Amino acid sequence: MKKIINDPDRFVDEFIEGILLAHPDKLKAPGDDNRILVRADAPVAGRVGIVTGGGSGHLPLFKGYVGTGLCSGVAIGNVFSSPSSEQVFEATKAVNGGAGVLYLYGNYGGDVLNFDLAADMAELEDIETKTVLGTDDVASQPKERKSDRRGVAGIFFAYKCAGAAAERGDSLDEVAAIAQAAVDNTGTMGIGLSPTILPAAGKPTFELPDGEMEIGIGIHGEPGIHRGALESADEIADRLTGPIFEDLGLASGDRVAVLVNGLGATPLEELYVLYRRVAQIAADAGVTIEKNYVGEYATSLEMAGASISVLKLDDERLALLNAPADSPFFREV
Amino acid sequence: MKKIINDPDRFVDEFIEGILLAHPDKLKAPGDDNRILVRADAPVAGRVGIVTGGGSGHLPLFKGYVGTGLCSGVAIGNVFSSPSSEQVFEATKAVNGGAGVLYLYGNYGGDVLNFDLAADMAELEDIETKTVLGTDDVASQPKERKSDRRGVAGIFFAYKCAGAAAERGDSLDEVAAIAQAAVDNTGTMGIGLSPTILPAAGKPTFELPDGEMEIGIGIHGEPGIHRGALESADEIADRLTGPIFEDLGLASGDRVAVLVNGLGATPLEELYVLYRRVAQIAADAGVTIEKNYVGEYATSLEMAGASISVLKLDDERLALLNAPADSPFFREV
Repeated sequence: MKKIINDPDRFVDEFIEGILLAHPDKLKAPGDDNRILVRADAPVAGRVGIVTGGGSGHLPLFKGYVGTGLCSGVAIGNVFSSPSSEQVFEATKAVNGGAGVLYLYGNYGGDVLNFDLAADMAELEDIETKTVLGTDDVASQPKERKSDRRGVAGIFFAYKCAGAAAERGDSLDEVAAIAQAAVDNTGTMGIGLSPTILPAAGKPTFELPDGEMEIGIGIHGEPGIHRGALESADEIADRLTGPIFEDLGLASGDRVAVLVNGLGATPLEELYVLYRRVAQIAADAGVTIEKNYVGEYATSLEMAGASISVLKLDDERLALLNAPADSPFFREV
Repeated sequence: MKKIINDPDRFVDEFIEGILLAHPDKLKAPGDDNRILVRADAPVAGRVGIVTGGGSGHLPLFKGYVGTGLCSGVAIGNVFSSPSSEQVFEATKAVNGGAGVLYLYGNYGGDVLNFDLAADMAELEDIETKTVLGTDDVASQPKERKSDRRGVAGIFFAYKCAGAAAERGDSLDEVAAIAQAAVDNTGTMGIGLSPTILPAAGKPTFELPDGEMEIGIGIHGEPGIHRGALESADEIADRLTGPIFEDLGLASGDRVAVLVNGLGATPLEELYVLYRRVAQIAADAGVTIEKNYVGEYATSLEMAGASISVLKLDDERLALLNAPADSPFFREV
């Protein structure tokens, strides 16, 4: 296992310490527990707070999207593990500006359990919460069961839209509706080329033989829908984009935002080779890409691979994407 | 070889095509050759142009730093290969706003040859050029031979300072002097954990046995100064930072900017574990980190590893770092 770490059991606490040392102007730990981070000016009075969270190992997800015009706070679990309900509750209190708090995170069992428990605790303290789950992984469930899908990189679009709505002063109901609409109009598919090694375990999370790829893989290495010989970038882009376009029912004249995301070890050059083909596919379908994002937005430690996310746009969602945002890892001006 | 590519021989042209499709508002190819990119508003009349260039495979280096407040244009070679002198010359003409052109690139034989030839061609067309080489790799030569050192990630600081100076209207002499001062006050050291595979070659550029690391490695896998058992992140940070601090003669009261750069496959989390230790080292030495950058700024395709760069600051250099800049890959507001 070749990792630049110290004690594997201290890995999460140490990289959080690094983040706090690097970005004291943008992020703070509101209490003694560094696993809870909030934007430096939290709570913002009269504004809806947005709390996200989940396991570590996905930077810039989740903590990277805490900032103005994005999420307000995050509860951070161990690598690939949920934060505790108490941590989510602490984050909730720290971002509560009196207008309620939206829980916006990926659909994983442990996270759902702990965020739901935190919602109960918040209710006892008269903090209203609502929950929207990221469920964008087209490969994980058929369309009829969209609400059971895993949440992967496409949650970025929900953060961006909901965060912009909260920043401009929308109510909790409105922010939640915007987040849900973003999720409903987002589809993602990923490809994995190599497994991830968890620092504490020290061995690969799964096996993927030489020369093979896995289409539809999850960001924790969850099984996809096709494993076979590695194909060309264009073939891969076709395999990933086709089901998403179909799932979203995209037709000529539609407008979208596209995110080509690296899972960790894949060079940025290869992401642009993928984007090139996605742009061709969209043009051929008469679909206009109004906004694009190419880079690492949701990773799986050092997994080699990529994902493609598509958000179907309307005027409001495009305006929300274009609204200012500022975090240590993402900025829109 | 697991790469998301099509024909290896088309790799560079295809990712450039992807970049142009993704960022038509910021970059353009001024002629028929996509290997030459310039900022969308080039040439800017009355402003010094800055041309960089070098081999591909290092994104966001070099083409990522073409934009306002950064470089004006880039000539792009094949993977790890210099662009041609004609391409550098074409970039020169495309960014020439009448105030001269600075060549600012890393110190590699092929690049020096071709940029020098381009300077001769430019002179024949009455375009004044000056050259400043990135020579920040402390591991590559002793301090007495600093001008012979390789250029690695620390050239980012020179881009940022020189680009800000050009943007505000400094003369060619002034911009060159600022770039040279940035280079003179920058030191970098890298660590490699795994080799890179060139798309066209399909095999690793070098061997690095299980459990070993190479300290002082170059961004093309050039040999470092120590190969041995993989150490802890803190030990690695000590090995990289110590020689840089010594090289720059840093003492209590000094101010610096720090760049912790990932070489490709190393997770962002690990870079923050490194930054944590660098911040401790600086604090212990009484050195203030005024500005930090943590992420992938100069990569070597999918090499696992990292580098640490330090720029000694004065008031002017700090102001230049803080000046606005905007490219598809880097933004300062």
